[in-house]
Amino acid sequence: MKQERLKRVIANMEDANLSQIIISDPDSIYYLTEIGYDPGERLLALYINTEGQAHLFNNHMFPQQAQEGLTIHLYDDVDDVMGMVASVIHSGVLGVDKYLRAKFMLPLLDRCPGLELRLGSEPVDRARTYKDDEEIALMRQASALNDATMEEMIRHLGDGLSERQMVGLVGEAHLRRGADVAYEHIICYGENCSKPHHTSGAARIQAGEPAIFDIFAPVKHYWCDMTRTIFFRQVSDEQRKVYDIVAAANAAGIAAIQVGRPLCEVDAAARKVISDAGYGDYFTHRTGHGIGLALHELPDCSSTSQILIAPGMCFSVEPGIYLPGKWGVRIEDLVVVTENSVEVLNHFTKDLLVVDK
Amino acid sequence: MKQERLKRVIANMEDANLSQIIISDPDSIYYLTEIGYDPGERLLALYINTEGQAHLFNNHMFPQQAQEGLTIHLYDDVDDVMGMVASVIHSGVLGVDKYLRAKFMLPLLDRCPGLELRLGSEPVDRARTYKDDEEIALMRQASALNDATMEEMIRHLGDGLSERQMVGLVGEAHLRRGADVAYEHIICYGENCSKPHHTSGAARIQAGEPAIFDIFAPVKHYWCDMTRTIFFRQVSDEQRKVYDIVAAANAAGIAAIQVGRPLCEVDAAARKVISDAGYGDYFTHRTGHGIGLALHELPDCSSTSQILIAPGMCFSVEPGIYLPGKWGVRIEDLVVVTENSVEVLNHFTKDLLVVDK
Repeated sequence: MKQERLKRVIANMEDANLSQIIISDPDSIYYLTEIGYDPGERLLALYINTEGQAHLFNNHMFPQQAQEGLTIHLYDDVDDVMGMVASVIHSGVLGVDKYLRAKFMLPLLDRCPGLELRLGSEPVDRARTYKDDEEIALMRQASALNDATMEEMIRHLGDGLSERQMVGLVGEAHLRRGADVAYEHIICYGENCSKPHHTSGAARIQAGEPAIFDIFAPVKHYWCDMTRTIFFRQVSDEQRKVYDIVAAANAAGIAAIQVGRPLCEVDAAARKVISDAGYGDYFTHRTGHGIGLALHELPDCSSTSQILIAPGMCFSVEPGIYLPGKWGVRIEDLVVVTENSVEVLNHFTKDLLVVDK
Repeated sequence: MKQERLKRVIANMEDANLSQIIISDPDSIYYLTEIGYDPGERLLALYINTEGQAHLFNNHMFPQQAQEGLTIHLYDDVDDVMGMVASVIHSGVLGVDKYLRAKFMLPLLDRCPGLELRLGSEPVDRARTYKDDEEIALMRQASALNDATMEEMIRHLGDGLSERQMVGLVGEAHLRRGADVAYEHIICYGENCSKPHHTSGAARIQAGEPAIFDIFAPVKHYWCDMTRTIFFRQVSDEQRKVYDIVAAANAAGIAAIQVGRPLCEVDAAARKVISDAGYGDYFTHRTGHGIGLALHELPDCSSTSQILIAPGMCFSVEPGIYLPGKWGVRIEDLVVVTENSVEVLNHFTKDLLVVDK
């Protein structure tokens, strides 16, 4: 067990008036135990109580090393695993995380008459929002891998690859450099750059078009996520102007990060640059999202986020301008907040690049 | 609403003694309404009762056309959507599907004191097991697309592409031919063919190695899934022998499909060919899985499946031999069972192919 993290979760449980919780989110289980996998249809669950007891329920197909402070209950497919879970729960209130499925919850209620269930994701989700030094080091490593991959990938822009083939190429580079899995990146060329959630397809890039590389992957469980917009062979005056506005918005968002201020101010600072330049209607999404063991987690960096910026927070700053029917530009970095500074995790240049090959 | 399907679900509900159910599996909702999408963190739910009333709870971000027999409740993020759900439920027992999350279930219980929840996936899951003519036509279309993609892809085997780049290429071909999304295929070369769930990486094929192409995608919501093993430049006597055994096992499995017999007999027939040839220890997974709106659904085609084969069932027959540290072979077709015959949905050749380019 990661004892310091467990202490923080228990403190959050006490704040939430929960003496016991069950966690089924594999990322949250990994956070506390360094055991984490997708169990598919099966149960993977961690029980914790405020006395510090921890029980892991784990299918025998995924055997796990013993670890101090954690009781591991291996079960077979024929075992009554919810009965095993029921045997460690005490009566009263049990917090369950938001992901727990009816398939497990209803049998648990059957076995524990009178048990009162309450939503109990918050103690772990809140703990995960404030990364410790070990996590920050992993976030740095992951983003360094992403920087190197971006450097390598944009060289292939003139190779005649479709968006989808480029997705395959980026995935290969990520895996080769040490990512846990290859992921479904967002690679867009030309008009497709005007769609923030475009599905990469058969388009091939033409001279004068931008390419958006929004690439992400987990590395030792921690995610990287970066976007750059690169031009192919030539760039028009309007493209250069829009690029400069988005780059300035990205810089303004980062400059607005200040411990103790609400995250909506980061969104407001980035948005103001784009609105002042007359493109406010074309920045159609929030400025950023928290990231860590999940690609999207707390804290939210949107126009309504009242969450106060604090050391250990890690999130994206990714303003964009999307011109329907034409093209678009997005620039995204990850940042981590420390006591006295803001560290930008991505070091790949944000200068306007034109690939000519 | 798909009225015939709704009737079958209601009949199954009556069998299960459930007068009302809530469905949250988007595939099952699509099955009944042709409305289906991944709602992410939001609720998408369909309420049905045995009187034939149907209510869909749908976020306003995903607007839907009205349809006869279905009341659509659009909600905003600020609305009390579980209160809206609670207002249509009657007291007593409510079936909920196995995927329903605590995030939605607990607020529902709060709003409906005394409501008794029971697992209620089975009425829809069972209906989905028996495809109607419209679904079978879609399954045929999807597999035809996969056949054509396989034909196109294996021509690229000598192009020097890594496994991961081939994944990108297959995804592009699938999308170009009309698949809904590109998926994470299993492409393995050489020794990686000995791992049934290999993650495609940076390996490049060498002369004398097999390549496994296990490719799948949803097409108009219905999945295709086919595997072929192709040799590059040359094939050894042992490889030829193992290939022939796996091909014979695939044929024996298909030949054993008979309406009224349990599915374990299909597994047994395929397994017997491999065991009799002395490779029983190297066929390490079940023979097949049901497929339709989900890549894996009912019916299971394993050594323990007592499900009786019936018209409308659609599943894979995919025996394999995996020689650790060496290589492996798998051959997979989809089949659909009709009243008087078994139709193999894949038409791409199962003859041993050697690509030499």
